[in-house]
Amino acid sequence: MSEHSLINKYLAPLAAGFSGAAGLLNDGAVLGVVDGKQLVVTTDTLNEGIHFFGFEPPELLAKKALRVNISDLAAMGATPLAYTLNLSIPRKISDVEGFLASFCKGLAADQAQYGIALCGGDTTMSEHSLTITITAFGLAPRIVARSGAQAGDVVFVTGTLGRAVLGLQTLKENPVIDLNNPLQRAYLLPEPRVDLSALIAAYATAAADISDGLLADVGHIAAASGVQIVLETARLPVAEMPWEQAITGGDDYELVCTIPAYRAAEFLQKVESLYVRLTNVGYCGKGAGVSLRDDAGNILPSPVTTGYSHF
Amino acid sequence: MSEHSLINKYLAPLAAGFSGAAGLLNDGAVLGVVDGKQLVVTTDTLNEGIHFFGFEPPELLAKKALRVNISDLAAMGATPLAYTLNLSIPRKISDVEGFLASFCKGLAADQAQYGIALCGGDTTMSEHSLTITITAFGLAPRIVARSGAQAGDVVFVTGTLGRAVLGLQTLKENPVIDLNNPLQRAYLLPEPRVDLSALIAAYATAAADISDGLLADVGHIAAASGVQIVLETARLPVAEMPWEQAITGGDDYELVCTIPAYRAAEFLQKVESLYVRLTNVGYCGKGAGVSLRDDAGNILPSPVTTGYSHF
Repeated sequence: MSEHSLINKYLAPLAAGFSGAAGLLNDGAVLGVVDGKQLVVTTDTLNEGIHFFGFEPPELLAKKALRVNISDLAAMGATPLAYTLNLSIPRKISDVEGFLASFCKGLAADQAQYGIALCGGDTTMSEHSLTITITAFGLAPRIVARSGAQAGDVVFVTGTLGRAVLGLQTLKENPVIDLNNPLQRAYLLPEPRVDLSALIAAYATAAADISDGLLADVGHIAAASGVQIVLETARLPVAEMPWEQAITGGDDYELVCTIPAYRAAEFLQKVESLYVRLTNVGYCGKGAGVSLRDDAGNILPSPVTTGYSHF
Repeated sequence: MSEHSLINKYLAPLAAGFSGAAGLLNDGAVLGVVDGKQLVVTTDTLNEGIHFFGFEPPELLAKKALRVNISDLAAMGATPLAYTLNLSIPRKISDVEGFLASFCKGLAADQAQYGIALCGGDTTMSEHSLTITITAFGLAPRIVARSGAQAGDVVFVTGTLGRAVLGLQTLKENPVIDLNNPLQRAYLLPEPRVDLSALIAAYATAAADISDGLLADVGHIAAASGVQIVLETARLPVAEMPWEQAITGGDDYELVCTIPAYRAAEFLQKVESLYVRLTNVGYCGKGAGVSLRDDAGNILPSPVTTGYSHF
């Protein structure tokens, strides 16, 4: 089956619901922007042997690639609109059609779940390994940047920290996929906090997802905003593991945000009404960097690793 | 040097001129849309060993990756606005900083030449080979699709066909880069027809770039528009090679477009006033598919290959 036929059979149906994609027939797609909304773009690449093992079913890889991007949209206060897909399929995959069928089945399921549609892309061969790049577009009523945190703001984080790292460890020890294992599930099939994007847009002075680990990502907010962020280690909602590992591990697709103190109670109540766990883990103060404090108020040394770095 | 420091040093300066990028500090960028314009998105991936050899200087690869996307924007009648970059750098590149410095030097030069700025991306490591994905955004006064061609329209193509294929052959025979060789230059450093995007938007009923080869790309226009396209082989502006090879070779970043017959002379004059070679290579008629005719009007068999297919 030719590249063109494969695209028509497997990818064009994923673009059927988005008129600006024009059935993937053109050199580009058109993104319509609603009056009064901002168009947000974000992009993430997953590489075989780096971001995933390679033995995962294509369906799962497709979902993770889409979800890590939707997580970034949520952190910007945006709701999903459309995405492009760049898929480099290695020569070693002999059944390209079977691969694409499974991959697109995963995308179709997540498109329905998250209200997003394919609008373009590039499907090519690669020499050695699978590379998946998704670029996602969303619409936001207001842009939430990393640079808006103010001294006095309360710092909140969603969910539980460190589960994905534990899931990854499980798979390294025994490479058998079990989506009923909640730790593996957190690593393989994260659930982006897209339900919160409207509340983030309405309440947050700054937000980010914590895919690099909480410590690194609050560090980025502190640097961009010119504040110090104090994390209270006793409050950290960690999985069954040392907090040092939970806040440096990465691959958690939870959100961290800063909320003006006078609005914090209202924000907490609204988030909890969506059945999302939200924890006050600290506050912003004058100064710079991230400070870790125990429940006696002692300043703790920062863990050496501050987030995943590729180089 | 950490990933974060490398991004700050080499990539953030490329985003300095685009306010929606916010210095690459956020999880996403904001694309501002001008009233009355359409936002076009297009994306292309270049893989080592598939789309390039691997011995090319990073500076040249960066330019080609950007230019092939700008070519798609021009084909849609759009002028460049911004782009995202996903760079997967293989472990075998030991001097990551030297690589990035050269790569970003190429991007900076082309940003100035084409009036486009970086607005986001993802820089990661890969196991084996270099993968470059660029997703480019442009603004168009009106969208030119592949589906708008009408029976009676005249078919035009810019430039000379087949030079990139000859340049690629030269490099396969003797892998020494010489940008003074116009054939090599056509392959390594294509010049997207961005000067024509406004004229395409104003005159064309359909347009595409011919990166898959003229024959395949007019085939896509014929299929999307529901017309037959007749190519007159004696008119084809081919390099020193058989026309069959010139129209199937691919990697030419020229534009093909269809223009209503009553506007064809005016379009030709306006394009030539920009010192761009433009050739009437055929016309649209009723029917389907692509028909090749010699100067005696005989219908010729179609070359077996119709464009590069990855699978």
